[in-house]
Amino acid sequence: MLKGILAVLLVLVTLSSAMGKPEKTTPKKEKRIPQTLSRGWGDQLIWAQTYEEALFWSRSKNKPLMIIFHLEDCPHSQALKKAFAEDKDIQKLADDDFVILNLVYETTDKHLSPDGQYVPRILFVDPSMTVRADITGRYANRLYAYEPADMKLLLSNMQRALKFLKTEL
Amino acid sequence: MLKGILAVLLVLVTLSSAMGKPEKTTPKKEKRIPQTLSRGWGDQLIWAQTYEEALFWSRSKNKPLMIIFHLEDCPHSQALKKAFAEDKDIQKLADDDFVILNLVYETTDKHLSPDGQYVPRILFVDPSMTVRADITGRYANRLYAYEPADMKLLLSNMQRALKFLKTEL
Repeated sequence: MLKGILAVLLVLVTLSSAMGKPEKTTPKKEKRIPQTLSRGWGDQLIWAQTYEEALFWSRSKNKPLMIIFHLEDCPHSQALKKAFAEDKDIQKLADDDFVILNLVYETTDKHLSPDGQYVPRILFVDPSMTVRADITGRYANRLYAYEPADMKLLLSNMQRALKFLKTEL
Repeated sequence: MLKGILAVLLVLVTLSSAMGKPEKTTPKKEKRIPQTLSRGWGDQLIWAQTYEEALFWSRSKNKPLMIIFHLEDCPHSQALKKAFAEDKDIQKLADDDFVILNLVYETTDKHLSPDGQYVPRILFVDPSMTVRADITGRYANRLYAYEPADMKLLLSNMQRALKFLKTEL
């Protein structure tokens, strides 16, 4: 046990000396928080990193893919993110039945911007790699946009994406 | 000091009880550690998420792009990752002068696999979006592979990527 404590202390000393160093030797840099793949959209979910990876998982797991396009400095994206991350039903359904991807950069696939490259927007892709352009939100000028008040609609759209899957495959 | 030890023990107890819990209360789900973009290749570095994003940053910052292809369950990738993450010179140069991206899935760009899609492999791309197929490691059968013992070569290759940049642009 004592050995364990000593080992832990050693780790702590090492950690604190490592953490203490940057300030002394390289005054320019502060300690950064490692970037997460979730970017705050659900730290407990398993996120694909790239569209290629997401398509691979969607096909191999036969789960629909949900792609969230957003920007870190866009207040609408931030507000939607908060609502999305806090909605337990959405988080659970995403975790259980979807492959999920959030992107701050557009892909080269034009099918992912049926009515333009705006943020935030959410698109569904089925495992056959067909973009489900028919699953839309409530705004006629930005069909794939959602606001924090639209979480019920988003949840029902997720359920539609799953329903399509069962009916058509 | 004793307080510190107690705190550490408490953390340990919490950790071990947390680790023990999933079996008891929620048999399916354990608490997940959020995935990081670094995937362990340098938590303090700023990583691009996708190739598109990396190209954008490379062009707009006029910095060469370094792409690491790897796999989580590949022992060669893991060994290289450890050496890469622990090499202060490489980490500093990567942080200061490169746009960096690590990928566990291949992109659709065939230029990124000049001699095949193996892992681990490291490729450099200059801001004009030209893949620097001339910057290679020491293995004739896998030109872009590196081993943990090759960190000096990798560092010098990074410096070559920067030198090209200054000479040619």
